[in-house]
Amino acid sequence: MSSQLGQLFRISTFGESHGGGVGVVIDGCPPRIPLTEADLQVELDRRRPGQSDVTTPRKEADQCEILSGTFKGQTLGSPIAILVRNKDHRPEAYSEMAEKYRPSHADYTYDAKYGTRNWQGGGRSSARETIGRVAAAAIAKKVLKTLHPEIEVLAWVKSIHTLEGTIDPQTIDAGTIESNIVRTGDPAMAEAMIERIKQVRSEGNSIGGVIEAVVRHCPAGLGEPVFDRLEADLAKAMLSIPATKGFEIGSGFSGTSLKGSEHNDAFYLEDGRVRTRTNHSGGVQGGISNGEPILFRVAFKPTATIMSVQDTVSKDFEETELKGRGRHDACVLPRAVPIVEAMTNLVLCDHLLRHRAFCEGPFA
Amino acid sequence: MSSQLGQLFRISTFGESHGGGVGVVIDGCPPRIPLTEADLQVELDRRRPGQSDVTTPRKEADQCEILSGTFKGQTLGSPIAILVRNKDHRPEAYSEMAEKYRPSHADYTYDAKYGTRNWQGGGRSSARETIGRVAAAAIAKKVLKTLHPEIEVLAWVKSIHTLEGTIDPQTIDAGTIESNIVRTGDPAMAEAMIERIKQVRSEGNSIGGVIEAVVRHCPAGLGEPVFDRLEADLAKAMLSIPATKGFEIGSGFSGTSLKGSEHNDAFYLEDGRVRTRTNHSGGVQGGISNGEPILFRVAFKPTATIMSVQDTVSKDFEETELKGRGRHDACVLPRAVPIVEAMTNLVLCDHLLRHRAFCEGPFA
Amino acid sequence: MSSQLGQLFRISTFGESHGGGVGVVIDGCPPRIPLTEADLQVELDRRRPGQSDVTTPRKEADQCEILSGTFKGQTLGSPIAILVRNKDHRPEAYSEMAEKYRPSHADYTYDAKYGTRNWQGGGRSSARETIGRVAAAAIAKKVLKTLHPEIEVLAWVKSIHTLEGTIDPQTIDAGTIESNIVRTGDPAMAEAMIERIKQVRSEGNSIGGVIEAVVRHCPAGLGEPVFDRLEADLAKAMLSIPATKGFEIGSGFSGTSLKGSEHNDAFYLEDGRVRTRTNHSGGVQGGISNGEPILFRVAFKPTATIMSVQDTVSKDFEETELKGRGRHDACVLPRAVPIVEAMTNLVLCDHLLRHRAFCEGPFA
Amino acid sequence: MSSQLGQLFRISTFGESHGGGVGVVIDGCPPRIPLTEADLQVELDRRRPGQSDVTTPRKEADQCEILSGTFKGQTLGSPIAILVRNKDHRPEAYSEMAEKYRPSHADYTYDAKYGTRNWQGGGRSSARETIGRVAAAAIAKKVLKTLHPEIEVLAWVKSIHTLEGTIDPQTIDAGTIESNIVRTGDPAMAEAMIERIKQVRSEGNSIGGVIEAVVRHCPAGLGEPVFDRLEADLAKAMLSIPATKGFEIGSGFSGTSLKGSEHNDAFYLEDGRVRTRTNHSGGVQGGISNGEPILFRVAFKPTATIMSVQDTVSKDFEETELKGRGRHDACVLPRAVPIVEAMTNLVLCDHLLRHRAFCEGPFA
Repeated sequence: MSSQLGQLFRISTFGESHGGGVGVVIDGCPPRIPLTEADLQVELDRRRPGQSDVTTPRKEADQCEILSGTFKGQTLGSPIAILVRNKDHRPEAYSEMAEKYRPSHADYTYDAKYGTRNWQGGGRSSARETIGRVAAAAIAKKVLKTLHPEIEVLAWVKSIHTLEGTIDPQTIDAGTIESNIVRTGDPAMAEAMIERIKQVRSEGNSIGGVIEAVVRHCPAGLGEPVFDRLEADLAKAMLSIPATKGFEIGSGFSGTSLKGSEHNDAFYLEDGRVRTRTNHSGGVQGGISNGEPILFRVAFKPTATIMSVQDTVSKDFEETELKGRGRHDACVLPRAVPIVEAMTNLVLCDHLLRHRAFCEGPFA
Repeated sequence: MSSQLGQLFRISTFGESHGGGVGVVIDGCPPRIPLTEADLQVELDRRRPGQSDVTTPRKEADQCEILSGTFKGQTLGSPIAILVRNKDHRPEAYSEMAEKYRPSHADYTYDAKYGTRNWQGGGRSSARETIGRVAAAAIAKKVLKTLHPEIEVLAWVKSIHTLEGTIDPQTIDAGTIESNIVRTGDPAMAEAMIERIKQVRSEGNSIGGVIEAVVRHCPAGLGEPVFDRLEADLAKAMLSIPATKGFEIGSGFSGTSLKGSEHNDAFYLEDGRVRTRTNHSGGVQGGISNGEPILFRVAFKPTATIMSVQDTVSKDFEETELKGRGRHDACVLPRAVPIVEAMTNLVLCDHLLRHRAFCEGPFA
Repeated sequence: MSSQLGQLFRISTFGESHGGGVGVVIDGCPPRIPLTEADLQVELDRRRPGQSDVTTPRKEADQCEILSGTFKGQTLGSPIAILVRNKDHRPEAYSEMAEKYRPSHADYTYDAKYGTRNWQGGGRSSARETIGRVAAAAIAKKVLKTLHPEIEVLAWVKSIHTLEGTIDPQTIDAGTIESNIVRTGDPAMAEAMIERIKQVRSEGNSIGGVIEAVVRHCPAGLGEPVFDRLEADLAKAMLSIPATKGFEIGSGFSGTSLKGSEHNDAFYLEDGRVRTRTNHSGGVQGGISNGEPILFRVAFKPTATIMSVQDTVSKDFEETELKGRGRHDACVLPRAVPIVEAMTNLVLCDHLLRHRAFCEGPFA
Repeated sequence: MSSQLGQLFRISTFGESHGGGVGVVIDGCPPRIPLTEADLQVELDRRRPGQSDVTTPRKEADQCEILSGTFKGQTLGSPIAILVRNKDHRPEAYSEMAEKYRPSHADYTYDAKYGTRNWQGGGRSSARETIGRVAAAAIAKKVLKTLHPEIEVLAWVKSIHTLEGTIDPQTIDAGTIESNIVRTGDPAMAEAMIERIKQVRSEGNSIGGVIEAVVRHCPAGLGEPVFDRLEADLAKAMLSIPATKGFEIGSGFSGTSLKGSEHNDAFYLEDGRVRTRTNHSGGVQGGISNGEPILFRVAFKPTATIMSVQDTVSKDFEETELKGRGRHDACVLPRAVPIVEAMTNLVLCDHLLRHRAFCEGPFA
């Protein structure tokens, strides 16, 4: 059950980077949503390797097939299974990984837990697993849009290594983000970020950064106290993305240096709607959305695979050395932007369906 | 189901701050664990109001009763229900809250979601709800200790407002933390922190801060890819604590400015055991514990209730003003330390039971 | 999690027959449903011992207290905890059960599983556990009635031992059932059934029987393929009632001797609504209600506790003898009627909330 | 989530009879279990159409592919996805079903629930869905055998239409069952049953029957009070099989005519093990296995598709007639035998993993 997410819009991802393929089963999608492979492919293409000059040169088409759950271009209400075949097999490239644990990878911990692992290309811990999430989230987004056409989920690169952009979450738009291959919301920083990635890559090194995201026009009322708070489910969703180390919402860590009188978001009325003058809460109060923009940030560590020699141990418990090989992203952030959006759409869709069950119609 | 946490060690908390009481049902506790009310009370006493000079002066004994699930001082394997009666009722103190939404509280969002709320003392959104968590976690801790006596969970105040302590997570001990009423791990900072809280309280204001926590001697292998990663479940657990705004593990947000060559944790052998020379991973790799100390930090915003006049709106959607009243913590961190420990114990216990089901005996 | 039932309207029962009390937490009840203890008590009174001449003479008032989840007579949307204290303690009456396993009781299996048990009055396996179910179901019924006032759930005694009543499920009404203390739907059989129970009781023996139930005016569309079929969830709910040995819906076991041409339910139209001319399906097709009456039967074995000497073994694994003592129902069926209704209401309410999440509004 | 079964060994089936394929994802399989497609195919072959003279002549090879979760012939502990492509497409054969509701099929109820359905060959309600269950159960069986090599699950045809076999559940063996194409446990009845099926088929009619099953050498202690009793989970699993109308365990419905003194299973000792002299309990007491054979029966209605004209209504709500076409089983029981075994293995495996989590090692 550890590869499942969601209470009502429940996804089950499967697959290793090498083997038959990767994919997802979505159980809990409402019926009669228009859906074809093209709807998924557009999001998968934003995630796939080889899409630009700053991502890994591995060419993976990541062509998806919907195996079930649709009929004549609409969802049936039954489970939707989606499969993407693995193509770019070079198992021989990984033979050294069969013996040696890559530092800051999941090699050692998988062996410690399961006593076995698929050491080809990261196996289950490969970022290829996120293909299933992105495909499922493309459907979640359609469900959201059916119920609330005004909801908008956007993520962008806030910082890469020491380079930080200046972005206004109220006004940033998808066109701006997609206008540059690092997907930063601050195009003025794009060139410097691209250069930094290329520079680090040329050194055989890697870097991380921060992705920021906003949900605009989210209706008030989503999220459930006390454990399934909207921010708690977002935090879990984000920390389940490979390479993430932190999550903060609204004022986050920097808000801890404010006083209550500075931090509190005063209420006022705007066109008969309850609004807040500031948004330190990040759009969520008491675990429930308040109608203001939901704003959060996710920290990504530098890619673990680097092209220099590192100390490590072998699976036979001998100290040894390992030098990274293969074609890896020196910085995962540009490709992680659609994944952050995907996880956000999944969390929102699940909570929207939950809300419908309990808090609409005669009850509200 | 939103008040439930855990897949195997599953807790269901209940209760509002005013009404019959608060409590928890634990379904999934193994049998034959020695357990009496005294085991719970010691943890509840660390959480309760009125325990020191820097907490709210409200006197709440928070005396617990075990209603079920034990027999002759041992758990039965059946659900353990625990009840703490509400005592210090002053509903009249809250009549203004019935009409006006307190800024940065859950008043408005509860109304937006449910169309109703118990406005006495915060109702379900009151921190009294955490009583159930702390009681359940005292049991989780006993389960953990039965299976792994060496596991040690410790949390402490890292910073309050702008005051930050210097603490070595490897060596900090419970005695040091409990030696001062703010529960900072840096006793040299305790007096300044206490003064800061008193100062802010005297201004009718409030402050927040950061709590840091460590799990020492956690066996390698806990946590499950891909969604129920140990850090993802910890992040959710921490963000489900009232007033939290951020979570980071290991290098966290500051790790985003390192390069891979600086960030990677080289493996080596120590007494035949796989260790890492640094611990930027924070004890978790690929979602699974690696045997190193699990280290994370949680951001708490300043208490929302302050004693000054704030702009707000009424439930009839009219703009108005509100001045906080009552006896509130000007800083929740000292009392939040045992809650952070509690949530950690709950997550670890759940994952340890899950691990037993799949990865022990003939499978490992 | 084994004491939990329901995906959205989720109940967690707790408690042993001796100890602090028994009860339930309901997580997933919509807000703003009028609810007081009196609503629950009326159903609990139909279940309690000592209510008539054919039930155990134990006097248990089973007075319930709502601990949380309501405010000013309405549900809040938060967990509703309900407690019934245990009163009629006579632990000394059970000392022999501490040592000897009662035949066809749960004594031996609890020990085999848990290595411990509360041997006072059956502990967790006592029928007192069903108090929580009946209380929760009284709330489920209110939710159902809010959404579908026309839904009607009725159960009655179909047979006791070898005595079988003749009842028309289309026309039977609550008044008829409650008009006799055995709660048979065939009042002409009531006297004979009462005499049979008294006769068997006077012999120190016990009997079982069959309870039949109908759901009338259930909307078409409830139930979910493929595992959570309405009949599958009803079967589980019924087989979770103590002393049950069988469940059948519609034509049931006797339908296995019909041919398809005899068994198929031809569709026709009545007032523009799709109806079936026969109802061998029992109101459910493909796991989903079709709008016809849902009709099923549940087999109850004779009460295990009898007042004669039986062969058994002790917990120290020695062969011995045991003679039942105490005040037990010689036939549980009259008191089981409200429990069958309760489980039906719980299953229907859960599926109705699930249906709302996925299949209403823009999707249908 | 309605297509998911199991708490720890959790399966998610997907697929319609027409479309990309059918399959299953198993999340919760322990690592290091030897597993190849051949292990699954042997069970799938027992289920597939066209296997004998009494099943539908449709030729479906049902060749399975393991897409994920294994490596070098062993399970990894990660989700195992299994796909069987749909082959024998004749959508034109179903065009009439697009317009008319087949009596006692799921056509009408799917439309009533979802407002849409895949009308080709039954879509999601097709028995092809059980392919995923049988494949998953083949793995469950391997897990069971790893932990308890002595466990044996057997099912057989007890009766077909009015023909009932005489079978001793203590001694019946797989060879006897598989020795005849109806899979009855009473080979003396096989010829008559085969003739009955052929006779009914030649009439364009259909018949049902009863399948009986036993679990031998199940350890005591499996099953969890109070809702997840072993018999309750078995009942749900069996009633989730298409065409089932009833379930009974041990004495079942016929036990309701016994007195307690006749029904109770006296305990005795055999080689230091607790045994019962009779087995009216059917191997389960208080929801937990007692070590005796678990014995139950499942009622299957006659196949709904028959080759004669029946009254029905169209999806436009007009009364009309429909005559079955295509190649259907006149009696599903021979092919349902492996499905009953499959569901039993799934339930047992899930409960065995649950048991390991809570009740082994230091707790027992």
